[in-house]
Amino acid sequence: MTMPLMFDLLGVFFFGVSGSLLAARRGFDIVGSLLLAGLTGIGGGIVRDVILGEVPTAFANPYYFVPPTLAALLVYFVAPGVQRLKRPLLVFDAAGLALFCTSGTVKALELGMNPFAAALLGVTTAVGGGLLRDVVANQTPAIFDPRDMYAVPAMMGAGLIAALWVAGFSGWVWELAVAAIVFTLRVLSL
Amino acid sequence: MTMPLMFDLLGVFFFGVSGSLLAARRGFDIVGSLLLAGLTGIGGGIVRDVILGEVPTAFANPYYFVPPTLAALLVYFVAPGVQRLKRPLLVFDAAGLALFCTSGTVKALELGMNPFAAALLGVTTAVGGGLLRDVVANQTPAIFDPRDMYAVPAMMGAGLIAALWVAGFSGWVWELAVAAIVFTLRVLSL
Amino acid sequence: MTMPLMFDLLGVFFFGVSGSLLAARRGFDIVGSLLLAGLTGIGGGIVRDVILGEVPTAFANPYYFVPPTLAALLVYFVAPGVQRLKRPLLVFDAAGLALFCTSGTVKALELGMNPFAAALLGVTTAVGGGLLRDVVANQTPAIFDPRDMYAVPAMMGAGLIAALWVAGFSGWVWELAVAAIVFTLRVLSL
Repeated sequence: MTMPLMFDLLGVFFFGVSGSLLAARRGFDIVGSLLLAGLTGIGGGIVRDVILGEVPTAFANPYYFVPPTLAALLVYFVAPGVQRLKRPLLVFDAAGLALFCTSGTVKALELGMNPFAAALLGVTTAVGGGLLRDVVANQTPAIFDPRDMYAVPAMMGAGLIAALWVAGFSGWVWELAVAAIVFTLRVLSL
Repeated sequence: MTMPLMFDLLGVFFFGVSGSLLAARRGFDIVGSLLLAGLTGIGGGIVRDVILGEVPTAFANPYYFVPPTLAALLVYFVAPGVQRLKRPLLVFDAAGLALFCTSGTVKALELGMNPFAAALLGVTTAVGGGLLRDVVANQTPAIFDPRDMYAVPAMMGAGLIAALWVAGFSGWVWELAVAAIVFTLRVLSL
Repeated sequence: MTMPLMFDLLGVFFFGVSGSLLAARRGFDIVGSLLLAGLTGIGGGIVRDVILGEVPTAFANPYYFVPPTLAALLVYFVAPGVQRLKRPLLVFDAAGLALFCTSGTVKALELGMNPFAAALLGVTTAVGGGLLRDVVANQTPAIFDPRDMYAVPAMMGAGLIAALWVAGFSGWVWELAVAAIVFTLRVLSL
């Protein structure tokens, strides 16, 4: 398993947990929790791949269904009291955001998009899953909360990755470093 | 007209009626009813085809616009009193669910997806239209109702079709049989 | 810059303003305003291009990010009092609707779709951005308001463009004329 694939699966897991936590707060059952975990985890990547004209990785590679399943089970069995806590949802969401804004931008760059469009697609990957989660659960998306700088760290991370690429720096070490910065900024802003 | 095409058009009609019934309950006019019937009827298939990288059948073949139109007219002219009844919506929805979870899985298998991804795409086709219907009409999707096992029959049907395919059984007779099982399970669970 | 590109960018700007005005009414901050302007402005075209199997113009051509940015800045700095007025949102929305129902239909025709599917894709382009705007901002889409004939002018415009194409008339002069008719009908219906 390659490093980028591992990061991506990790991002799917983090977003999946955020989806299952929202499902628990809204009183959905285990099936609803699994579906919302799946949509949140792989939704952003599917939007990215459909725009890039690729078969979505999540459908080409069955590994992608493991993280949402784990997330739904974890939240269902381990965390009955957790459902009233808003904070864990935000921290898991932040980790997914950090990993996806970098991996999304890199994938778009590798497929030959210009750096500007690539950064935008990275942001789309990062915020897409959470946006679908909130829209489908029928609540105003977290991304529009005026007391919260949700999208800004993702924009900075995606822009930074694109700028590093133009300057000739790429590889998973850079991705991980940028993801760590995005995660830190996002958690500090909570 | 081939058998699979007929089943698909029938599924579009059933989902179309469910869309128009929701439009009537929400007080939308005939245009809104037509749009919601169309989105519900062809939405799941469009998502499936976009993910498969195909031009959506509904756009390649003008037949697909007949069922939503019929559905909207039917609900508009025949059913003024029906709009308070929740049950017809659920039965029509169940018929669409049964037909689409099988036809969606088969299409994905025929285009060379692995059985696991194909089953998931079948479920996506089956629940996609209804999900779009509820999201667009701004209500919590039926799929997340904890008192209701909405997605489970579709998951079983799609999985069964994929398993039969692996075992060497395919063709519209099998599809119809699985669809009948899914429909029965779904209606019994109401 | 070609004439069709200019019309398209203008449509993105108009829809972008409608997105930012809704963001202001809902109390979203400048980032939320920019995101909603972007989604409203380029959302319909992305849906169109994804269905057509093309890389979305908005991602191929960086020009497309200028209009939403201008729209968000305009609404943020120029229009603090405007946020309670519903009418400007409707007029800007009407201008976007008029330009997109024609440009969307033409693009589909040029890529070889049959006139019927092309007209439908034109309507999808025209109403798609506003639908995404309302869905994402968690309110019942304007398109379903029974006191308002939102989609009808777009349907007429898209149908007219397709009919003119079949009759051998095409080019930006015809597009502009049809867009003017659609805009007039839409504004008169308010």
